Amino acid sequence: MAGNTFGTLLRLTTFGESHGTAIGGVLDGCPPNVTISEHFIQHELDRRRPGQSAISTPRKESDTIELLSGVFEGVSTGAPIAFIIKNNNAQSAEYDHLKDVYRPSHADYTYQQKYGVRDYRGGGRSSARETASRVAAGAIAKAILPPTVSVKSYVSQVGQIVVSQNVEQLNLELIESNVVRCPDAITAEKMLTLIEEMRDSGDTVGGVITCVIKGVPAGWGEPVFDKLHADLGKAMLSINAVKGFEIGSGFEGVALRGSQQNDSFSEGFATKTNNSGGIQGGISNGQNIVFRVAFKPVATIKSAQQTVDTSGNEVTLAAKGRHDPCVVPRAVPIVDAMAHLVLADHYLRQSAITNLNV
Amino acid sequence: MAGNTFGTLLRLTTFGESHGTAIGGVLDGCPPNVTISEHFIQHELDRRRPGQSAISTPRKESDTIELLSGVFEGVSTGAPIAFIIKNNNAQSAEYDHLKDVYRPSHADYTYQQKYGVRDYRGGGRSSARETASRVAAGAIAKAILPPTVSVKSYVSQVGQIVVSQNVEQLNLELIESNVVRCPDAITAEKMLTLIEEMRDSGDTVGGVITCVIKGVPAGWGEPVFDKLHADLGKAMLSINAVKGFEIGSGFEGVALRGSQQNDSFSEGFATKTNNSGGIQGGISNGQNIVFRVAFKPVATIKSAQQTVDTSGNEVTLAAKGRHDPCVVPRAVPIVDAMAHLVLADHYLRQSAITNLNV
Amino acid sequence: MAGNTFGTLLRLTTFGESHGTAIGGVLDGCPPNVTISEHFIQHELDRRRPGQSAISTPRKESDTIELLSGVFEGVSTGAPIAFIIKNNNAQSAEYDHLKDVYRPSHADYTYQQKYGVRDYRGGGRSSARETASRVAAGAIAKAILPPTVSVKSYVSQVGQIVVSQNVEQLNLELIESNVVRCPDAITAEKMLTLIEEMRDSGDTVGGVITCVIKGVPAGWGEPVFDKLHADLGKAMLSINAVKGFEIGSGFEGVALRGSQQNDSFSEGFATKTNNSGGIQGGISNGQNIVFRVAFKPVATIKSAQQTVDTSGNEVTLAAKGRHDPCVVPRAVPIVDAMAHLVLADHYLRQSAITNLNV
Amino acid sequence: MAGNTFGTLLRLTTFGESHGTAIGGVLDGCPPNVTISEHFIQHELDRRRPGQSAISTPRKESDTIELLSGVFEGVSTGAPIAFIIKNNNAQSAEYDHLKDVYRPSHADYTYQQKYGVRDYRGGGRSSARETASRVAAGAIAKAILPPTVSVKSYVSQVGQIVVSQNVEQLNLELIESNVVRCPDAITAEKMLTLIEEMRDSGDTVGGVITCVIKGVPAGWGEPVFDKLHADLGKAMLSINAVKGFEIGSGFEGVALRGSQQNDSFSEGFATKTNNSGGIQGGISNGQNIVFRVAFKPVATIKSAQQTVDTSGNEVTLAAKGRHDPCVVPRAVPIVDAMAHLVLADHYLRQSAITNLNV
Repeated sequence: MAGNTFGTLLRLTTFGESHGTAIGGVLDGCPPNVTISEHFIQHELDRRRPGQSAISTPRKESDTIELLSGVFEGVSTGAPIAFIIKNNNAQSAEYDHLKDVYRPSHADYTYQQKYGVRDYRGGGRSSARETASRVAAGAIAKAILPPTVSVKSYVSQVGQIVVSQNVEQLNLELIESNVVRCPDAITAEKMLTLIEEMRDSGDTVGGVITCVIKGVPAGWGEPVFDKLHADLGKAMLSINAVKGFEIGSGFEGVALRGSQQNDSFSEGFATKTNNSGGIQGGISNGQNIVFRVAFKPVATIKSAQQTVDTSGNEVTLAAKGRHDPCVVPRAVPIVDAMAHLVLADHYLRQSAITNLNV
Repeated sequence: MAGNTFGTLLRLTTFGESHGTAIGGVLDGCPPNVTISEHFIQHELDRRRPGQSAISTPRKESDTIELLSGVFEGVSTGAPIAFIIKNNNAQSAEYDHLKDVYRPSHADYTYQQKYGVRDYRGGGRSSARETASRVAAGAIAKAILPPTVSVKSYVSQVGQIVVSQNVEQLNLELIESNVVRCPDAITAEKMLTLIEEMRDSGDTVGGVITCVIKGVPAGWGEPVFDKLHADLGKAMLSINAVKGFEIGSGFEGVALRGSQQNDSFSEGFATKTNNSGGIQGGISNGQNIVFRVAFKPVATIKSAQQTVDTSGNEVTLAAKGRHDPCVVPRAVPIVDAMAHLVLADHYLRQSAITNLNV
Repeated sequence: MAGNTFGTLLRLTTFGESHGTAIGGVLDGCPPNVTISEHFIQHELDRRRPGQSAISTPRKESDTIELLSGVFEGVSTGAPIAFIIKNNNAQSAEYDHLKDVYRPSHADYTYQQKYGVRDYRGGGRSSARETASRVAAGAIAKAILPPTVSVKSYVSQVGQIVVSQNVEQLNLELIESNVVRCPDAITAEKMLTLIEEMRDSGDTVGGVITCVIKGVPAGWGEPVFDKLHADLGKAMLSINAVKGFEIGSGFEGVALRGSQQNDSFSEGFATKTNNSGGIQGGISNGQNIVFRVAFKPVATIKSAQQTVDTSGNEVTLAAKGRHDPCVVPRAVPIVDAMAHLVLADHYLRQSAITNLNV
Repeated sequence: MAGNTFGTLLRLTTFGESHGTAIGGVLDGCPPNVTISEHFIQHELDRRRPGQSAISTPRKESDTIELLSGVFEGVSTGAPIAFIIKNNNAQSAEYDHLKDVYRPSHADYTYQQKYGVRDYRGGGRSSARETASRVAAGAIAKAILPPTVSVKSYVSQVGQIVVSQNVEQLNLELIESNVVRCPDAITAEKMLTLIEEMRDSGDTVGGVITCVIKGVPAGWGEPVFDKLHADLGKAMLSINAVKGFEIGSGFEGVALRGSQQNDSFSEGFATKTNNSGGIQGGISNGQNIVFRVAFKPVATIKSAQQTVDTSGNEVTLAAKGRHDPCVVPRAVPIVDAMAHLVLADHYLRQSAITNLNV
């Protein structure tokens, strides 16, 4: 119960540190006879991979998936699917100067306080490198889901640059058409310019990812604590640098009247609006599930910062190491993956009570 | 695993429907020798109780706590603490007209789709009446926590009326000084006027609750999935009508630069700013934990709405039943309770690995 | 995680002390639309009820089931089913002399050491009265299972009196034909005589219950830790006074050769013998599941015993209170109930991965 | 929840098939600053390793532990400890003849029925090779426990050859003095002769392992379902080939009177006898914990057997593959490991409620 496992029926346990031998995970609860494509898992990992573009960290990692178990002749067997991703380009020497210093807004200090010991190399267990394991598992979760379910995340804000169109006005097939992963080309260009400015000035900037899930039938999600959006929220908030989650009308909706917020039904149980974001009472209602995830700017910046050493003395820190000027483009596949994991878990949970041959 | 249990070491299971015999809960994992005050539990329930003021639902419920087990001579014994709260003022006849109709933005349709059956009386299991059980359990969780930990939630927004002061500028001792539970008297007055307008016009309005937690030492929270703010987020998102959660700089912080967002350390490991909201890498850093929770307007309104019956035919609905024009004042103790439950759980989780006599 | 919850998808949490207000439980995960018969639950409770015959404790409890939630118009709704059983005949004064004394082979000393506090009245939480909650929940679990599954437990040994017939030679419809719950009338008579001797002499005696489960299809049970017989074993070992569990050929089978032990297949996948006891590799194979459960003699005896008080000084104890001279006849419905709970849980777990519409 | 995880606060998830790339595990919940000796883990694996003596399977596996995470500069960091053990000597061709045949009393048929697919090579996931991961994790669990706790298991029966001495009469330091792992040299010799006979005749034989745990203080174990002996029982019953578990006086104790069975206290809370086997009411009482585990004879025998193919037709099978004539000598470290895992888990669970700084 140390928090490295996610899910109820489909359970992902991840392990590994940024500069250890390997990171990886075990996905338990995958139903049998699901086609597992190593090629697709690698494709998803490549979307998250460092060094993929001029605006991502120059750390060179092939992030090659190695499946160790649970797959036989191309399909899942029902046994746990374990995988590892080796760390090939760890340059731990770059982190020696961090052994005795706590970086601002990093987890260095909190890990030390919690455990009394920490692997300071590359952030150790607190590094966002851990999310590669989530992406690999998410690719398997996608294969478990009915093919009618689609998850599409995109960058809807970088700094103060915001996509002005709403979800229906965007062509989500264009997400991968630029390195920012924003489906509106003009906004993407502005975001790119801002991120390049940040990179060149040694600073960083935050952003928002919007996720749109289509094809989920009514009935997924569990009252009262495991509401579908509560599990999605926890999934997203567990991603490094995430500071906020909202679904449907979210924070803006609080200013509405009930008569404005309510989603009236049409004939056939569709709703005319979707302020609920596809979930009512914690259970999917068959409409699109739409939520937004806020990422703070990456904490590692190149400019000098005031901080303290492990004895509490003030020191000046100019961080080395290799980092992204803006994390959101590479976080898109992570949001996709966590959404797939939550959905597949709730799909199985609902199946447990509907497939009974009583 | 049907979702009615919350927590890892301190586990709350709730049960009961709005118009059934009773609602209640079982809190398992309470350490022994904790002083359990029935009086304090009742005090917290009274803060959530319907009918407590002119701006809350007129349903009359005493919400009297009855402890069934786990307490002996005033202290916990380590055995599960079960309690019930009887439903005395259920007027189910008021809901007969809802048997064959789905109310917009309620859980009627989704429960029916999920289960194929539903207790339509008063919203059944989906009613916010369930949260009374959380409030009772939260009062016990508070007793488990070290007395240095304090949780204070307040209404920081109703509709478009926003408290302009930040957390440090407010006197949180004034939260209970008005029925809105907003510590700024002038803003509270404006909020009250708006809520009364809503009540009189048969409409509803949403709001935001801000929660401030002081006194949590560095080290609570579990990487990587059970980050302290991820568990807080799930806890809050599981409350009825909640559509968003953000911690520290939240959604606004995405527009900051890393050099602005980062919380520099002072000597002694305090931070000069608190954009992190008291949690870094999922683990408390000893600063105040500050988060915000968005509540949509209550879905039940008195004006006529277009909706569908259970056969999918369009009908007009003018809801009866008794409801709040704005839920946030009564939701303050619910936010407090869920925060206490999350904190006490993580306190026990951290205790399990510290002070071992190896 | 204080151990008062059992099961994975179908989860029973029990609560309550022997001399508290009430005992009870919450069963979460019951699928919707299962017919819940209060009459049948009461029938099972009556089989376990104290005072049911001349050889059971004279404590008079009606053990009346009260359903609080989760059932609407006679069927389950998918919401948690909570129930209580009030304690009406607690005579706590009888236990005052035990406040400062540890009874031999009871849980008085261990609870005190664990918790530093205990409810000494009637054994508190450690009393076998807790098992009434299991019987109630087991009756619901039975309703969840396909009607083709049958569970039949019987007393196969009391002291040194052993039923000589094997399972196939017995008519399991005769279990309830005598107060001992042994389907062989002649052996039952001998057992009854022995139990009466024990009662009259103020002593107690142990016994064995054999459980036979028919109708479970091949495929229930989860590798590798949640093997079906491992979960059955834990379920049985968690019952008060149980000291052993064996399945199929059990302890006797260790003396066999592999060539003798192996269950050869016949055409159609039935096996010619059933030394496996219906489970292979932790998964049901479609044959009868047969296991045996050993109960030690009840620890409370009327004759004087040497023991210690809570300060560690030797004292002589002649226990008062009301107890059974032999627990196994009343334990039969408890074994049935725990078997039903394990089976229904694994039935749901298997359902979650079968019939998926991928 | 597919059953490949064991434990509550200390959680082991295992993965891997007999003839896959590797087997391994992830141990989550290890407290920080525990000294992790790769050398000791390897030592324990060597005790379980195939090919270690003339009476074990000739499969040649070095069973080399590779730690992937969670250990930094020789100590645990609080992060999950992942490890793999590569499969080097898998000779899958030997299993080709089993693709279309179900071996009697193996898991071939039940896995196929459960999943509709199976990795038939070397038994796949159902192979006892999985237990190597348990042994590795158990070695870490031992390091978590206070050094005063000792676990000693030994072979107390092979076929009908039984160690006649009781636990107190044996010198448990002699367990490793012979290949049978029986601390009585004369009985060990007889057992060895019997096992050699089995090996030479192509048959197999079962046995019993007795486990003695010293140094556990009073207070470990959780009522009511997670009783310490219930968790030990489940742990043991989850080991391949185990058919029975008993603690203290076990099955023999059912014939005793209460006046004989009861363990009277001496001054200072020790007990004069130990029929309880060190656990009362599910909680350790500070005495030695003693239990026995029954292993059936290995199902794979060399002589021809009648069985069926996957279409249900009768065929004759003479198994190839490499197996042990008696599994119990190599199962001793597995019993040790599972005991260490259960104890360390309950140690942490008890710590969670006793180390509070309230």
